[in-house]
Amino acid sequence: MLSDFSEWFHQTLDRAGIVDYRYPVKGCGVWLAYGMKLRNNTLGLMRLLLDDSGHEEMLFPTFVPQDLLAMEATHVKSFEGEAYWITHGGYNLLDVRLALRPTSEAIITPMVKLWTRSHADLPRKIYQIGSIFRYETKATKPLIRVREVSTFKEAHTFHATHEDADAQVKIAISIYTKFFDELLLPYSVSARPAWDRFAGAINSVAFDTVFPDGKILQIGTVHDLGQNFSKAFDATFETKEGTREYLWQTSYGISERVIAALVAVHGDDHGLILPPKVAPIQVVVVPVPFKGKEDMLNEAGKKVQKELLSIGIRAIVDDRPAITPGSKYYEWELKGVPLRMEIGPREAEKGEVTLVTRTARKKLQVKIESLPASVKEAFESIEREIKENAWTWQRSHLHQAQDLDKAKKLIETDGGIVEVPWCGNGDCGTKIEEALDVRVLGTPVDGSQVSGKCVICKGEAKETLRLAKAY
Amino acid sequence: MLSDFSEWFHQTLDRAGIVDYRYPVKGCGVWLAYGMKLRNNTLGLMRLLLDDSGHEEMLFPTFVPQDLLAMEATHVKSFEGEAYWITHGGYNLLDVRLALRPTSEAIITPMVKLWTRSHADLPRKIYQIGSIFRYETKATKPLIRVREVSTFKEAHTFHATHEDADAQVKIAISIYTKFFDELLLPYSVSARPAWDRFAGAINSVAFDTVFPDGKILQIGTVHDLGQNFSKAFDATFETKEGTREYLWQTSYGISERVIAALVAVHGDDHGLILPPKVAPIQVVVVPVPFKGKEDMLNEAGKKVQKELLSIGIRAIVDDRPAITPGSKYYEWELKGVPLRMEIGPREAEKGEVTLVTRTARKKLQVKIESLPASVKEAFESIEREIKENAWTWQRSHLHQAQDLDKAKKLIETDGGIVEVPWCGNGDCGTKIEEALDVRVLGTPVDGSQVSGKCVICKGEAKETLRLAKAY
Repeated sequence: MLSDFSEWFHQTLDRAGIVDYRYPVKGCGVWLAYGMKLRNNTLGLMRLLLDDSGHEEMLFPTFVPQDLLAMEATHVKSFEGEAYWITHGGYNLLDVRLALRPTSEAIITPMVKLWTRSHADLPRKIYQIGSIFRYETKATKPLIRVREVSTFKEAHTFHATHEDADAQVKIAISIYTKFFDELLLPYSVSARPAWDRFAGAINSVAFDTVFPDGKILQIGTVHDLGQNFSKAFDATFETKEGTREYLWQTSYGISERVIAALVAVHGDDHGLILPPKVAPIQVVVVPVPFKGKEDMLNEAGKKVQKELLSIGIRAIVDDRPAITPGSKYYEWELKGVPLRMEIGPREAEKGEVTLVTRTARKKLQVKIESLPASVKEAFESIEREIKENAWTWQRSHLHQAQDLDKAKKLIETDGGIVEVPWCGNGDCGTKIEEALDVRVLGTPVDGSQVSGKCVICKGEAKETLRLAKAY
Repeated sequence: MLSDFSEWFHQTLDRAGIVDYRYPVKGCGVWLAYGMKLRNNTLGLMRLLLDDSGHEEMLFPTFVPQDLLAMEATHVKSFEGEAYWITHGGYNLLDVRLALRPTSEAIITPMVKLWTRSHADLPRKIYQIGSIFRYETKATKPLIRVREVSTFKEAHTFHATHEDADAQVKIAISIYTKFFDELLLPYSVSARPAWDRFAGAINSVAFDTVFPDGKILQIGTVHDLGQNFSKAFDATFETKEGTREYLWQTSYGISERVIAALVAVHGDDHGLILPPKVAPIQVVVVPVPFKGKEDMLNEAGKKVQKELLSIGIRAIVDDRPAITPGSKYYEWELKGVPLRMEIGPREAEKGEVTLVTRTARKKLQVKIESLPASVKEAFESIEREIKENAWTWQRSHLHQAQDLDKAKKLIETDGGIVEVPWCGNGDCGTKIEEALDVRVLGTPVDGSQVSGKCVICKGEAKETLRLAKAY
């Protein structure tokens, strides 16, 4: 898979029925039925995490008038060149051009300003799920670099103090940690360098996962926005002391890149491997036909399915008569169904089924009456296996290097993330990027430190810088 | 409420926390947290109905290139003048202008063409939920006439024969009937006249509901698209006989107008009245404070809430200490919570609660141990009451008139829908529209017939035409 990862990725998305990007606008794709279910299950996990931690779901407009987008200076500088611009409504030239939101700070901040009078209205934690639009000039790639990001979950929070906002950043990081843990996705969490923060943020933290080709994909970001937007939008509140203060803000987002990671990180040569928690189909029951016993076996399959459905498991029976069991196995493995149950005449007689895991394709005979416990156990074992494989890959692709040559060699041969000692000076940081043609991911949030001198100036190393080839 | 319905409607949306349209782009609003939950619960009912009847949820791009929108002649004529047009990506002038989808026939048909080889691939039933955009030149109105329709559910189906498509139209009508029945919303179903069909359809059927001001709101439409789009997009399939045939299509949609109808049709002077099935909060438990017993009563309230949650009822306890019970009642009535439970010291002693319905505000003492049954009964009685009120209004605003003067008088004094006899000639139909300044809703789908001669030409009446002032 490694050698032709890009082809594998495109083919798997296509053959498993996740997305179709043959639509005649570049970077705009269709979520197919199976992919849509995977997407919605994944968003469902995120919704639960956000709802349970005091976030409220809302939905804001898609349009940002040019003057609103221009309020925050850094923000507009970064986004006006990659926004889509509406100039006409029908045959009429619009007075003010409308951008399609590339992100929603400039839309949400002026509304929260209307809703906030005093500290009693704070904190406020909002999220929305919808499309954002970016006119990407780089080559587009399904789910990874698209022009319509159709699965953008963005949260925006508003606080009375910087301490509260800072605490919220930590909460957001812990929410995303839980989310990626539930998806069994590995990550390295880095504070992005000053020259690569979200436009308008005073601090950006990102989750990066290592892909099978050794490149990293940013799968989630958390931003401390300070008071940059509230000052630009004059969004203030009355403090306990009766003074007026600007709001402190954070924002954090994920996108369909999470689905890209589920596909790429967990998949194998046979196709997808989906975590049971988000798999559209968790169990496929396949009656193995035996001449003259087809009806009996199909009935047995349906009975098993019914029992699984009754305990909340997404199960189907594949009793299509014209298709061989082998072809069925192939198809459901491609689609990443975590668990297969085969029922042949011998199993039916003994009141058993054969479980086959998608991961290592281990076979196990279990009694039908113990199915609830057996399935639960099988799911747990599948989850452990997926997670172990994924984290092993991520850990084995986190390297340290004390000089540029070694860093270069590691990135070229093995990919992944390379940590180097750094003096903390921005000039040295950008020089590393130029010298190695890599992206600086930033510094480890866990505070870990590589020994040695700054790889550029040979000065004392105060920090560790993470480098990688990135999508 | 009748005299100042418009003001009531705006105030209720605002005070109940449904939407906020103070965003600086006309016709673009924000779904607030409570409104968002109501919206999502309502969409949840629709999703179940569609999933259970063989529809697959997908998600298509927002952009339609100008040349694609122009493929179907009637369609583009109707929509190019009300589409939003993107001319620039960043600083670059685009080669082909992109419209924001005003509806998705021109997006979905070319994709289904790629997916369809033979009759074995048919039928195909797809739906998506998302935003569509229309540059409305008429005055905008929250949830009713907006420029970003942010809650558009559109279904698109593809069939091998016109009979199959026609059968699907009937299925769609029955799905929408079930949907509006679940929402307790009344409707009249009319086949729109030839001059007022959806652009590209050969037949359009619509659900109309009568608002408190006597005007009607179209809340759902079902279209037989014939082969208009498949011919324009050259979307064919191989028949059983081995010949090639163009696809037969239908489409049907609902929007946030359904939420507008829930608010307007069911509400009263105290605010919203929400059907239990979609109410974000189904039961609010209010401990009625009694000096020295506050903690005990709050505990009792929480116990009741816990029991309700355990049987799947969306219940909260309002134990805010600084707010009087009266203010709480007022607030939750405004928000349309169907059932209130009061617990005072007397109730607590006796192991009872007092139920108060939002509809007629009937009070009922019930034992805590019989709560599941009592709540179920109360919900059923609330549903009957809401439905009865709503249908009584709708039926009492469906009039017949044998001549234009009477029709005019009825519409001016009472509003609602007036049925007149009609010769079936389009000229006479449009003359009625001009003479009365009304909208022709079309002919009753149930085939009912008003006696008399055509109100314009006095010729033999072959059909019945429904007229109304419409939003």
